[in-house]
Amino acid sequence: MAGGGGARFWPLSTREEPKQFLNLSGRDILVNETVDRQRTFIDPQDIFVVTNRTQVPMLLERTEGRLQRDHVLAEPAARNTAACIGYAAMEIVKKYEDGVMCVFAADHHIRDQAEYTRVMRLAVRTAEETDALVTIGIRPDFPSTGYGYIKNSPVPGKPYRAVEEFVEKPDADTARAYLDGGGYAWNSGMFVWRASTILRYFRELLPDVFSCLEKIGNAMGTPEEAEVIREVYPSIPKISVDYGIMERARGVLMLEGDFGWSDVGSWDTLEAVRTPDGRGNIAFGDTLLLDAENCVVYGGQKLVAAVGVRDLVVVEGKGAILVMPRAEAQRVKQVVEALERDGRTDRL
Amino acid sequence: MAGGGGARFWPLSTREEPKQFLNLSGRDILVNETVDRQRTFIDPQDIFVVTNRTQVPMLLERTEGRLQRDHVLAEPAARNTAACIGYAAMEIVKKYEDGVMCVFAADHHIRDQAEYTRVMRLAVRTAEETDALVTIGIRPDFPSTGYGYIKNSPVPGKPYRAVEEFVEKPDADTARAYLDGGGYAWNSGMFVWRASTILRYFRELLPDVFSCLEKIGNAMGTPEEAEVIREVYPSIPKISVDYGIMERARGVLMLEGDFGWSDVGSWDTLEAVRTPDGRGNIAFGDTLLLDAENCVVYGGQKLVAAVGVRDLVVVEGKGAILVMPRAEAQRVKQVVEALERDGRTDRL
Repeated sequence: MAGGGGARFWPLSTREEPKQFLNLSGRDILVNETVDRQRTFIDPQDIFVVTNRTQVPMLLERTEGRLQRDHVLAEPAARNTAACIGYAAMEIVKKYEDGVMCVFAADHHIRDQAEYTRVMRLAVRTAEETDALVTIGIRPDFPSTGYGYIKNSPVPGKPYRAVEEFVEKPDADTARAYLDGGGYAWNSGMFVWRASTILRYFRELLPDVFSCLEKIGNAMGTPEEAEVIREVYPSIPKISVDYGIMERARGVLMLEGDFGWSDVGSWDTLEAVRTPDGRGNIAFGDTLLLDAENCVVYGGQKLVAAVGVRDLVVVEGKGAILVMPRAEAQRVKQVVEALERDGRTDRL
Repeated sequence: MAGGGGARFWPLSTREEPKQFLNLSGRDILVNETVDRQRTFIDPQDIFVVTNRTQVPMLLERTEGRLQRDHVLAEPAARNTAACIGYAAMEIVKKYEDGVMCVFAADHHIRDQAEYTRVMRLAVRTAEETDALVTIGIRPDFPSTGYGYIKNSPVPGKPYRAVEEFVEKPDADTARAYLDGGGYAWNSGMFVWRASTILRYFRELLPDVFSCLEKIGNAMGTPEEAEVIREVYPSIPKISVDYGIMERARGVLMLEGDFGWSDVGSWDTLEAVRTPDGRGNIAFGDTLLLDAENCVVYGGQKLVAAVGVRDLVVVEGKGAILVMPRAEAQRVKQVVEALERDGRTDRL
């Protein structure tokens, strides 16, 4: 799934160049890192990307031959994750009759590739053998209030665990209690299941979504496919797969992952992809830091000089420059909203 | 005098576009504001500007017809204010035989033009009648530690005062004592005197400088003028007129000025030229401030968004962006020095 707008990395991410096309790690853009990460257990020929229709040309260009053209699924409108996943499941069923399908967001970071591969192979085998919905729960490093949690319990004699409940992002005390008590994992949003199985859940739990998916599925491979997608897709109810299916399905299984996962969600969480210097600064691009501490500084076309400042995010994008306290990195959304309100789309 | 590099306004001021060409007030560039300010008491035909040779074409262009070509005196090298003023005095003596000469820096700001004109007319009359060196002392608004002071005393029955001593920038306690005790004015660096008088002081107090000026003066109006200036000027001893003459001359007089003077010296002193908003912010150009307080924010080509920050300077120049605490605005020099050391002249 690589369709997001990524306002949280504004002004580096923009409407024209969303987050999945950012090279935050200094190695490659997020979507390429995500595709390459799966190649150790998925045949590269079998990788699909769902994205916004307007981004298809850029996606094909930037992924540099990683993707087959007909494996790029273009959404005419963003309709949340249930629609996106259902569309992909339908495509897989059409192309392969059936198969185990792994779902990833394009903006995660994994530190330990070998362990990741091991867990994912186990997840694929679990989905094949049990026909259950399988998700990856991350062993928590710290009492994060930024992630949802999965309450889970062991299944005797099995490598997987039983999901008891998905819970929302907790407050600090609750997060502390989850960590101390055990039996809670971070909800990574990675899923593994047979395509036919998830479609069965769509039919049962999200019949309105499913009827749209069915129309699209019936048109696949016919001359009307593009037209049907253009007409039907924008009317799919907007709902997340977590809320619409995962939280309501029975018998969901979880594999525990402990491979240095993080959601590269905002300017204050870049430690996952970049190692700070001795004073806690993460600097990329052309920067000059004098007595700066614990700052994230991103220079683009210009030199960014940060002098005597601490705990700041300073980012130069193509059309704008952002300065804010690192602890308030979520507020970038307010800036984006203010610009939308003022019609300043030239800066978005 | 409009020859400075103006590193203190980097990255807005650069080597190619120094401070005197900045429009900090939102009305006009500093050099034009300075020229126009004198027109109420000096015939525009009699205004001269001394600047660096490399800046002459830009100066003529940006001053938009304010200056006659032969009233722009080009320094082949920066040799401090004594050289600059001596060169101008020699030119005036050659062109006019003699005359009262007023000396201004191109980077001051005056709020009350009418009162300024009144004081300057009085200063010109004083120089004509007494043949003394006359300077303008500013009545202090607050115990500034950023300006030098002039200790002075009344002269019975006269509008001018006697200068007793020039004193360096004081510490906070000393500045407080100056203000409380009275008899101290800020040293504005504005001077009024007959050209012949200041040259007499050069001959007496700075004979090495004077002998260079004499060579240049003798060549003025001859075919060798340009060559002599090119050869002699760079060898003039580097000394300020304050240190070389004012502090050592006898009978210096002072007119007190109370016309909203300020030296537009650095990013933290912009209140003089720009009125802050209700939260103490001074913003120019394309900016977006959300919960910012007491910041100076300058957007150039890009939008500058400042969110949840306080007491910061954020400036976008053509080649660089600077973020620093407002209280540490002097540190911009360290950045400029670091870039010079690193050979990053592209950013200077």
